Formats: sequence, C-alpha cells, structure tokens
Amino acid sequence: MTEEAIIASLVGPVGPGTPVGPGHDAAVLPGGVAWTVDTLVEGVHFAAPLTPEDVGWKSLMVSVSDLGAIGARPAWALLSLSLPRGDGAWVAGFANGFHEACRWSGVALVGGDTTRSPSGRFVSVSLGGPLVGPARTRGGARPGDELWVSGPLGAAGLGWRTPNPPPEAVRALARPEPPLAFALALAASNLASAAMDLSDGLSTDLPRLCAASGVGARVVSGDVPLHDVLIGRPDAWAHAVDGGDDYALLFTAPPTHHDRVLAAGARTMTHPRVIGSVTADPGVEVIGARWPGSAFRHFTGAPRA
Amino acid sequence: MTEEAIIASLVGPVGPGTPVGPGHDAAVLPGGVAWTVDTLVEGVHFAAPLTPEDVGWKSLMVSVSDLGAIGARPAWALLSLSLPRGDGAWVAGFANGFHEACRWSGVALVGGDTTRSPSGRFVSVSLGGPLVGPARTRGGARPGDELWVSGPLGAAGLGWRTPNPPPEAVRALARPEPPLAFALALAASNLASAAMDLSDGLSTDLPRLCAASGVGARVVSGDVPLHDVLIGRPDAWAHAVDGGDDYALLFTAPPTHHDRVLAAGARTMTHPRVIGSVTADPGVEVIGARWPGSAFRHFTGAPRA
Repeated sequence: MTEEAIIASLVGPVGPGTPVGPGHDAAVLPGGVAWTVDTLVEGVHFAAPLTPEDVGWKSLMVSVSDLGAIGARPAWALLSLSLPRGDGAWVAGFANGFHEACRWSGVALVGGDTTRSPSGRFVSVSLGGPLVGPARTRGGARPGDELWVSGPLGAAGLGWRTPNPPPEAVRALARPEPPLAFALALAASNLASAAMDLSDGLSTDLPRLCAASGVGARVVSGDVPLHDVLIGRPDAWAHAVDGGDDYALLFTAPPTHHDRVLAAGARTMTHPRVIGSVTADPGVEVIGARWPGSAFRHFTGAPRA
Repeated sequence: MTEEAIIASLVGPVGPGTPVGPGHDAAVLPGGVAWTVDTLVEGVHFAAPLTPEDVGWKSLMVSVSDLGAIGARPAWALLSLSLPRGDGAWVAGFANGFHEACRWSGVALVGGDTTRSPSGRFVSVSLGGPLVGPARTRGGARPGDELWVSGPLGAAGLGWRTPNPPPEAVRALARPEPPLAFALALAASNLASAAMDLSDGLSTDLPRLCAASGVGARVVSGDVPLHDVLIGRPDAWAHAVDGGDDYALLFTAPPTHHDRVLAAGARTMTHPRVIGSVTADPGVEVIGARWPGSAFRHFTGAPRA
C-alpha cells in the first residue's frame, strides 16, 4: 500500500447520519459542521518569491476553498506552526497575512500550537464551519449535467512552473482568492449536483470528481477559460489544466439550473463558465486538445503533495 | 513580542455565547463542541526509543488529554502527516498505533492530509468532541478549593530525562493513557471548579492554572504521588514536578465535593489525590520541598515546546 492508502484505510465513517466521509474536500460531522485540514511545507508548497505574509494568507485560503466547495461557511480555525528558532520576524509577517485572510473569510482563530522545527517551516490549518445547505460532495454528478468552472485558470500554474513569472502570476500563486461567496450562494440554493475545488488542476481533479460520481465527462477545450496572463503563450493550455493552485470551483449542475447559476455568479461578481458536460460513459474526453499528460507533472512535481 | 505572543494576539473570541477561548486546553465552539490541536515533531517531541506505533498512539493521546481536561468526549480527529519520501514502513507502524488509540478513546479519524517533508516527521492532530457537562476551564479555581491530581507523576519525565531509563518509564513516555473516563465522570457531574492536563509538569502547569483563575496554591510536597518507578531515587521530586508528559489531570474542587470526587475515581479505576489547596494570595507555595527550578528545564529542554 502507498502511504496515502495506509492513512486512507484508517479514515472511518463519522457516525450515523453523517453524509460525508473521506475522499471529499471536507468531513461533515453530526450537526452539519464541516472540517478540513491542510498543511503547507516550506520548500514543498511554498518558497520565494512568496513572502511570510503570502504564506499566512494562503495557508488559510487553501482550507477556505475546501469548505466553500463542500458548501460550508468558514468559521473557526486551529493553527499549528512548526518553526525554526528565532523566527520572530517571519512569524510577524505570517501573522499579518493570516489575520488578513481571517478578516476576508470571516474566520476566527480559536486555538493553536507552536512547536520547534529542526529545519524548515510547517503550517497546518484545520478549518471548520456550518453547512449553508445540503452537503455538496464530489459524488452527485449525473449524466447530462453541465460542467462548470467558476473562473479563469492557469495563472498560479504559470507562477510556480516558469522562471521569472510575471507579477500577476506570482500574485495568483501567492494570494489565491477562492470564490467563497459564489460557492456559498450555489450551496444555499442547492444548485450544483457535485463540486470540488481545483487545487491540483483540471486534468487531475476532474477525473477525481468523475470517479466519485461514477460518471465521465466531456470537456470542450476552447471553452476552458484561460487567465489573461496566459494569452498568446504556447504553454497556456498546460498551465490551465495541469498547473493547479487555482482554487477555482469545479462543479456540475442540471441544465435547467443554467440561468440560476449565472444569476448566482452575477450576485457574487463571479463569472462561471460551462466547459463541457457529464457523460454516462466513464473517462474524461477532451475535445480540441489533449491533457498535457502525467509525465510532465511527474517531472516538475505538483505544488500540493 | 515572542512568537507565541504574536500568535496569541491573533486568537480571537469565537463568538457570542462561547465560554472558552485561547489559553485553555481546547476551544469551545457554539453548539458545545470542543476542539484542540497538537503537533509532535521528530527530534523535538519524539525520538528513539519511541517506535512508530508509539508515535501513532501518543499523537492522538496528547489531544485526548486536552479534551478530557475541558470536559469533552473525544469524537473526531483530523490528521496531518508530513513525511520524508519512501516512508511506508514507518507509516504502517504509525497507523497501527494511531488506530489503537482511536479504538481506546472512541475517536473516528474523519479526514487528513499527507505532505512531503524535506527532513523529519511532523504529526499534527486536531481533535474535536462534544462537552459532557459545562465547559471546565483553568479559570474556575476558588480559594479554599482542594487541589487534586488524578494519579502518580514522574515516570514519563524519567523516561525522557535520563539515559537508559527503565522500561516502565519508557512505556509511560511512549504510551500515555490520560484519565479520560475519570475526567469525563468529573465533568458530567460538574464536580471540579477548574482543570487542566499536566503536559509540562506541575511546576509549570500549576502556576498557569492559578494565573487563569486569579488565585494561588499551596502544595504539600509529601502528598504529591510519585510513580513507583521513582521510589528511592534522589531525583524523584524533580521528575515528578518538572518532567512533564504525564497527562494526568490537575484539578480543583470544593471540599464539599471530596467524597464525590473519590467516588468518581472509584467508578473509573482512578485514584485521585489531594496535593494541596487553593489560596487567595497569588503565587504557588510548596511545603516541604522546592520547585527544582527553571534553570534545569532550560538546560535540558522541555518535551513539549
């Protein structure tokens, strides 16, 4: 078994009446409260040019993205920091960014733990909050549903996969803003049949959503929205679907909900776009392009281990 | 400001009606659910002779101890592991110990995150569960209360502070068993006025409880129960009050509750003992001995940073 498989084998059902267990963006506990945990490791998930402030911001936002995906309002964070000795200046910057992210997302830091790290910094955030509607998992997509993304992709991928990236790409990597208001608007109206956040890229995450739902998907490559910073670049498609770290929302919804999804987007200043459809046949078909392929990912390493 | 002070400055109130915020063993959220987080770092909090199984057990138990102290039944864990490459054998052992601890404490692992560590292993556990009575903090001790510990101290301290410790001391260090049933029995009957778990040793933790309650304490050194493994050792007192890692419960209760506390102990096969009393004058007075002193702690390093 792989390490992930060993850990996964430990994850058990939460209890009677609990709809969401392992393999989703967050666990849903009795009482309708969702919890998730994410760890950022220096040298693996962050490095220069990210500042301490950026790491503070991002360490909360990756979990805000998970809770939004499952349809829960982020509310309470627990922070665990493992730091080298004498790290006061770094911590002060980190705290500013983390605090800013708390204000942005309405989160209260309710507890934490600070430990010594022999080398490198480790930031682990557990985040919980109440569902605003029925729990929305990766598992509800149905053939015939439209496949949506909440916004343009690829800027963060450009930010970490190329030398000397443009400032806009660094900003996307360093200061992700998950579409929280939009995700919660969708959840409160129960418009989406399935959802997940795009942390590892469409080419990795869409097959996961399909597998969880027991369906396939057809993606129209020309309909996948590319971030402005990618315009005219020959590697645009690769960054958009393989880069990851976008924290956009990938979701499915019945075509009858199309206009209501657009209206939820308009209310929350988000511009969701249909990029394909859900199919009964398993597997993901891409029309007009190909996935760049896993070889590339393995060569460069994914940003989120 | 110290790093801890910077982080502490970020911890905010949880919301209206929430009784317990920072500075206690766990946060209590609306709905009466408590959450805590603890991280164990290789080379700081664990090393040989602890096995991977031991680390799995202990990583959950340190948080089980916190929830018991606040009076909450451990229920749901989130596990974050940061590991070197190719760590499958270690993870398999860890998983066995962690699973054993989940069964012992009635906890379901509901989610997690596995990341790559450039060096060394980091284990972070967030643990939540419902209160079984009113939240019991460090802040409720009143002058005239009796001061109790739930059981004998010092074996774990001997385990990590001396070369070639006896097996019983290693076991105490590696396989702590917090007095969970007793802690919850006390909490359900609301017998204790204040409580905390003894993770850093009586000489460090008792002043914290006193400060949180705005009181002082008088400890009768001869009444502090020493673990059998310390009998006849000249360093027994130092290990008992300075060693830490005991995860016994330190608590206060009105003298009128004395017999009911003993009865709760009898029901849960625990032998709590009065070690002194709570005073109106601030400060901690020890009768018949002295705290070994902070110089020793600073020289050896505390097990829990």
